[in-house]
Amino acid sequence: MSANISIFDTTLRDGTQGEGISLSADDKLKIALKLDALGVHYIEGGNPGSNSKDIEFFQRVKSLGLNARITAFGSTRRKNSLAEQDASLLRIVESGVPAATLVGKAWDFHVHTALQTSLEENLAMIFDSFAFLKRNGMEAMYDAEHFFDGYKHNPEYALAALRKAQDAGADWLVLCDTNGGTLPSEIHEIVSRVRSELTASIGIHTHNDCELAVANTLSAVQAGARQVQGTINGYGERCGNANLCSIIPNLQIKMGYNCLPDEKLRTLTSTARYVSEIANVHMPVGQAYVGNAAFAHKGGIHVSAIMKDSKTYEHIQPELVGNKQRILVSELAGQSNIISKAHELGLDVNSNNEKTKQIIDQIKELEHQGYQFEGADASLELLLREAFTDMKEIFTVESFKMHMEKSNGVMISEAIVKINVDGQQVYTAAEGNGPVNALDNALRKALVQFYPKIEQIHLSDYKVRVIDEKDATAAKVRVLVESTGLDNTWSTVGVSSNVIEASWEALLGSIRYALLSMDKVNNGSPDITERLGLINH
Amino acid sequence: MSANISIFDTTLRDGTQGEGISLSADDKLKIALKLDALGVHYIEGGNPGSNSKDIEFFQRVKSLGLNARITAFGSTRRKNSLAEQDASLLRIVESGVPAATLVGKAWDFHVHTALQTSLEENLAMIFDSFAFLKRNGMEAMYDAEHFFDGYKHNPEYALAALRKAQDAGADWLVLCDTNGGTLPSEIHEIVSRVRSELTASIGIHTHNDCELAVANTLSAVQAGARQVQGTINGYGERCGNANLCSIIPNLQIKMGYNCLPDEKLRTLTSTARYVSEIANVHMPVGQAYVGNAAFAHKGGIHVSAIMKDSKTYEHIQPELVGNKQRILVSELAGQSNIISKAHELGLDVNSNNEKTKQIIDQIKELEHQGYQFEGADASLELLLREAFTDMKEIFTVESFKMHMEKSNGVMISEAIVKINVDGQQVYTAAEGNGPVNALDNALRKALVQFYPKIEQIHLSDYKVRVIDEKDATAAKVRVLVESTGLDNTWSTVGVSSNVIEASWEALLGSIRYALLSMDKVNNGSPDITERLGLINH
Repeated sequence: MSANISIFDTTLRDGTQGEGISLSADDKLKIALKLDALGVHYIEGGNPGSNSKDIEFFQRVKSLGLNARITAFGSTRRKNSLAEQDASLLRIVESGVPAATLVGKAWDFHVHTALQTSLEENLAMIFDSFAFLKRNGMEAMYDAEHFFDGYKHNPEYALAALRKAQDAGADWLVLCDTNGGTLPSEIHEIVSRVRSELTASIGIHTHNDCELAVANTLSAVQAGARQVQGTINGYGERCGNANLCSIIPNLQIKMGYNCLPDEKLRTLTSTARYVSEIANVHMPVGQAYVGNAAFAHKGGIHVSAIMKDSKTYEHIQPELVGNKQRILVSELAGQSNIISKAHELGLDVNSNNEKTKQIIDQIKELEHQGYQFEGADASLELLLREAFTDMKEIFTVESFKMHMEKSNGVMISEAIVKINVDGQQVYTAAEGNGPVNALDNALRKALVQFYPKIEQIHLSDYKVRVIDEKDATAAKVRVLVESTGLDNTWSTVGVSSNVIEASWEALLGSIRYALLSMDKVNNGSPDITERLGLINH
Repeated sequence: MSANISIFDTTLRDGTQGEGISLSADDKLKIALKLDALGVHYIEGGNPGSNSKDIEFFQRVKSLGLNARITAFGSTRRKNSLAEQDASLLRIVESGVPAATLVGKAWDFHVHTALQTSLEENLAMIFDSFAFLKRNGMEAMYDAEHFFDGYKHNPEYALAALRKAQDAGADWLVLCDTNGGTLPSEIHEIVSRVRSELTASIGIHTHNDCELAVANTLSAVQAGARQVQGTINGYGERCGNANLCSIIPNLQIKMGYNCLPDEKLRTLTSTARYVSEIANVHMPVGQAYVGNAAFAHKGGIHVSAIMKDSKTYEHIQPELVGNKQRILVSELAGQSNIISKAHELGLDVNSNNEKTKQIIDQIKELEHQGYQFEGADASLELLLREAFTDMKEIFTVESFKMHMEKSNGVMISEAIVKINVDGQQVYTAAEGNGPVNALDNALRKALVQFYPKIEQIHLSDYKVRVIDEKDATAAKVRVLVESTGLDNTWSTVGVSSNVIEASWEALLGSIRYALLSMDKVNNGSPDITERLGLINH
């Protein structure tokens, strides 16, 4: 009985307007495959009239046989010209996609200021352009730019723009909060008015400039919108577009709308992480639903309640969106966190066990020294596996050296490592653009002959924190290293009064963790591969 | 005529539940000073019953003479006991703060499952605890935990919990969406019901698990809540708390409520960035209102429209929140900051001056490279003094070298520096317990014969931040060094792809600044010492 909502993904078009986001045609095709697997209904590929990368995408995407409709983006025809002769509109038709979205002005101020034409000519531009798309047999969507700002200044003109598109046969009227400045209560009121005045289906396209894009989208759906435009992880210009990774579960789990089949919704977290990898953008740990900390618990009281019943501090079951509960082990927490972490890893541990007490004491001692495992799951896992399983040491370090020199403005960093892999000594050196990079390069160089897959992982974050600030450079530092391989991410920690030594420790942990997972993959232990899902596809 | 909203900041308490966030007592005091300057009404400092760090904070914060009310956090008394004998409640009263917030259950499920007591005893716990605070003359706020979930399951019990607190004299009933799973429309309905049933003032405390914390807060205010609890940058457990940096401008600029004086609102961006520096958490460029990309324009069409009229693609004037427009071409935003900074230093600078334009270009170029002067006043001052005064170079560096070696578990760090002081070459070496410490030791050793007072200063903080996380160890890092001595504290910055080189640059800046102020102090310029005096203890 609940309504269906069409999910329109514009990660490949509006998402690429985000600062620092640049996608190749290959990247776009990979993301399109992943979006199709997620089950979105529309994938906006780009603007075939704007650049060769997008033209390549539209050519190659046809052979992928996707279920999602691929849509092209463009503008209404130029002023004082014919749609049939508009190069950009012709390119859209030539691209062979079944559907297109055209942006057109709906705010009188913009018609005057940005477009510098008359209000009548803008209406004609809208009508002609949609009539042209429909004559060419396409599904046509009108992105009514600045619709809400326009409505607030001149409601009749904003509605007239929609009506022109509807009269020309547009299938969807997509109301855009282009500047992201509208409030949920305003959205609800204005969408309700649109519903009462027009018959075409309504879509919603919001931006996050007030941190309200998700709420605004929900508000529009409650008022009758049936298409939702957004991007994975909310990528987009300025503060980003509406984040589909929050909107979809809100609509489906909280509000009872149908967006995706339930089993596809379970791939939401891996989709979000995959896209962040391809886009090469660091994903905030606290991102709603799909973030690494979205279901992470730190406080001891919270953890002991979670052990009794997870709904005490979780608003949904994390598995519904493919995420998982994490218990953070921190100074605030006690034994219950560690035991539940061990259970999560499938280790047979209980609180009465002597070994359990030992490992808890060991972790407390390490925390006292400045280690922090709440941000370093992989280091904690290595500790627990060492204590409770017969984990073999894949390699051992004999020594490392580091030389740096700055003279006449030129800086040189060189690392020399001596390690032992299965009884074989490897002694090698590498340069880097800094000491940690040099060490990382040297260590990989030493290991890659034994573990070629090591090339598929890379360090994705590096953080340094002074623990006891009173002694400043003589104080201890904690280094957190985050590594990433395909759609998995893990973190390790190192502590020392020497920033290089702490980095080295975290680096070693990261590589050991990766090798351990590869090893497990090779030995075919399916639950671990699944959980780590490391280099497995 | 518009309503006043009390801003309750819990960055120092609930914010520290965020993954990877750990604040020392010094960090907390610095943030409290900044929050007070922003003009928030309440600063929740922590839980005086939980740890020594918070006890230290409450002791030391008294001497800062803040305008904001400092509040302590705790729970309602333990079950089956007396409030007068509850160690945690006694600690709150002893801490000497004028106001306290107690969390207490409002969801029957939690009373049974987590608290494991009867519904009646929970109500008695609430009543006794608030009566105790009021007998001790404190302003008392009830954080009604899981209020919305509780209301949805058993509205009468949730309301009864509020009523007990009100009957005991609680000044504020703060409705908490502890699990962050509630929708704005539900919030509005439930807060309206509470307003109709109770007379005490209502507060709202939301979490961001559905990416709706800001919208939920606005919704509660629209339904009558008059206190807003949240954190700077939305720090907090799991997906974070409600983000005050978005809530305050939404309430004040968009909705017409009074939160802060307009001139204080203009410090919002610098506050957000300062707190992210102290917390050592990377700030997303796209953060609403205060992010570096919040008013950045990339698309060519957008930029040309912006040049005609900035409201074409900006929902507010960025200056209202102390942010600025950024366009890919160089612009003059920020000039006024630099000029006012120069005036603060007593330098004769005006915007028409050719030299002023040069220094602005230089600072912009440095910021583009990753420098950030907001947390490094001393580096900015050095730049300005170099440009506008005849500052002599006290010493110059010819070269430095660094050797490190770890073998058989023993780590050695050695630095060699060659510097020039007043035409005299000093070539010396020192060891340290890490590379930065070794460099620091070598540099001091070279200078102490010329400037014996250098022994009175020491590095008090050292922070490293990866600027471009995409390349991990090959990425650039920014090092912030804080130095203390001669009753002053100052910060300097260094940037490089090499953590040691960046540290060296910040270290040099710190020492140069110290030598310069010694010089000035000797010349009897008291205002510098005074201006720098951050936390004098």
